[in-house]
Amino acid sequence: MDNRPIGVFDSGVGGLTVVKQIVKLLPEESLVYFGDTARVPYGSKSKETIVKFSKQIIRFLKTKNVKAVVIACNTVSSNCYEDLSEEFPDLPITEVVTPGVESCIAATRNKIVGLIGTYGTVSSGAYERRLKAADPEIKVYKKACPLFVPLAEEGWANNEVARLTAGIYLKELMDKNVDSIILGCTHYPILKKCIGNIVGENVTIVDPAKATAMKLKKYLEENNMLNAGDKEAQRLFYVSDRSHFEQICSRVLHEDHTVEKIDIEKY
Amino acid sequence: MDNRPIGVFDSGVGGLTVVKQIVKLLPEESLVYFGDTARVPYGSKSKETIVKFSKQIIRFLKTKNVKAVVIACNTVSSNCYEDLSEEFPDLPITEVVTPGVESCIAATRNKIVGLIGTYGTVSSGAYERRLKAADPEIKVYKKACPLFVPLAEEGWANNEVARLTAGIYLKELMDKNVDSIILGCTHYPILKKCIGNIVGENVTIVDPAKATAMKLKKYLEENNMLNAGDKEAQRLFYVSDRSHFEQICSRVLHEDHTVEKIDIEKY
Repeated sequence: MDNRPIGVFDSGVGGLTVVKQIVKLLPEESLVYFGDTARVPYGSKSKETIVKFSKQIIRFLKTKNVKAVVIACNTVSSNCYEDLSEEFPDLPITEVVTPGVESCIAATRNKIVGLIGTYGTVSSGAYERRLKAADPEIKVYKKACPLFVPLAEEGWANNEVARLTAGIYLKELMDKNVDSIILGCTHYPILKKCIGNIVGENVTIVDPAKATAMKLKKYLEENNMLNAGDKEAQRLFYVSDRSHFEQICSRVLHEDHTVEKIDIEKY
Repeated sequence: MDNRPIGVFDSGVGGLTVVKQIVKLLPEESLVYFGDTARVPYGSKSKETIVKFSKQIIRFLKTKNVKAVVIACNTVSSNCYEDLSEEFPDLPITEVVTPGVESCIAATRNKIVGLIGTYGTVSSGAYERRLKAADPEIKVYKKACPLFVPLAEEGWANNEVARLTAGIYLKELMDKNVDSIILGCTHYPILKKCIGNIVGENVTIVDPAKATAMKLKKYLEENNMLNAGDKEAQRLFYVSDRSHFEQICSRVLHEDHTVEKIDIEKY
């Protein structure tokens, strides 16, 4: 039993969809979230910079006495997992790409899958390489959907603009006959319903956030690290720049939280 | 007479709309453009960082022997103009906010004006302060339009998604009876036609890019610094990360250009 909190971090607000899934599966766990809203987006930055930023964040999370860390950012997950595991050998670290890939492999029947994400994630080839490593027969069609992030952040999750946009973006993938689509950006689960209406029920929408929360739960159970339940779950939120985090937080989690701005460069 | 090129820079691709206006007004001038596509966006960064980045960029432009520099970025214009003028006292530097403000003051009749831009520009209050300094009676209504940048970058300048989005964003301002709207983000001129269709012909759309090009032309004329015309105009484009710059460049300028990636942190 381990009553310490779980640390979750992202380049910005998108990781809140991972928090949502963790809260759903592990409601008794305390959480500390950090969103690097001052330095977002990570997608266009060099690996060296992203590793440096991520190490600062994990050092900050360690000051909050976390028992485990979840990387809720596709860019960090794809590029820096090994570096971070090496730097912090005593801290269990979970990332979002591997669970997403495993979920997709389990879901596809015709082995034709779609990947949607930012330009950075889609062009990095991280999901594609791991999907093909898991099953060389898999065909991956990719589509960058740059309007999805601002749509999610505006709270336009299922209005007419979102529906039209999703229709345009997803047509290419549907024409390729994909039977599953990976949400390769942590913002996209906010648009899941809208995306589902476009692709129909014969296409499985793979949400790496959900798969990540399941993997984390399994790890904590197997290692006897779940919260004993004698201490009430606390959820704390930190950012590097305030912007409109609280608004998005209450929209995604349906809970109101205060958020504290910290100087992440100190860590 | 001065045949050296004019330097133009922006945090990314948006400044190409300023290039477009300069090319229109001063077709004989050579240009060197730098877009800081690896470190975009600037809006969420500290002033200290933005000054540092801008100085690197101007030092790079000086290696290209520029005779003048145009800051085609609202964030840099609002926050760093004085610092940059001090650092480079011998280089004429033009920014985009002042010409935009002057144009708007000249255009408004009812003194109720709208400002649209990114969250960063809108919340910084830079346009508002200068408008009120020029005319204390002016009322400014502001609206952040975060979907406009990805719409412009996708080339969705006047499709159904753009029209619906503009309709939602601009309704608030129209309800306030604004008679002019400042395009407070260098991307927005790409959507000018779409915005114009929503607000109608009784509302003046103030494009700071156009006003900036006019101010630059006046300065070069008054200081006898125009290109003598004996050397063909050359337009060179540099970025800190390639991404999809060339595609947007040909869409905005209706000219194909190759773009060179440089290491801006060296300067």
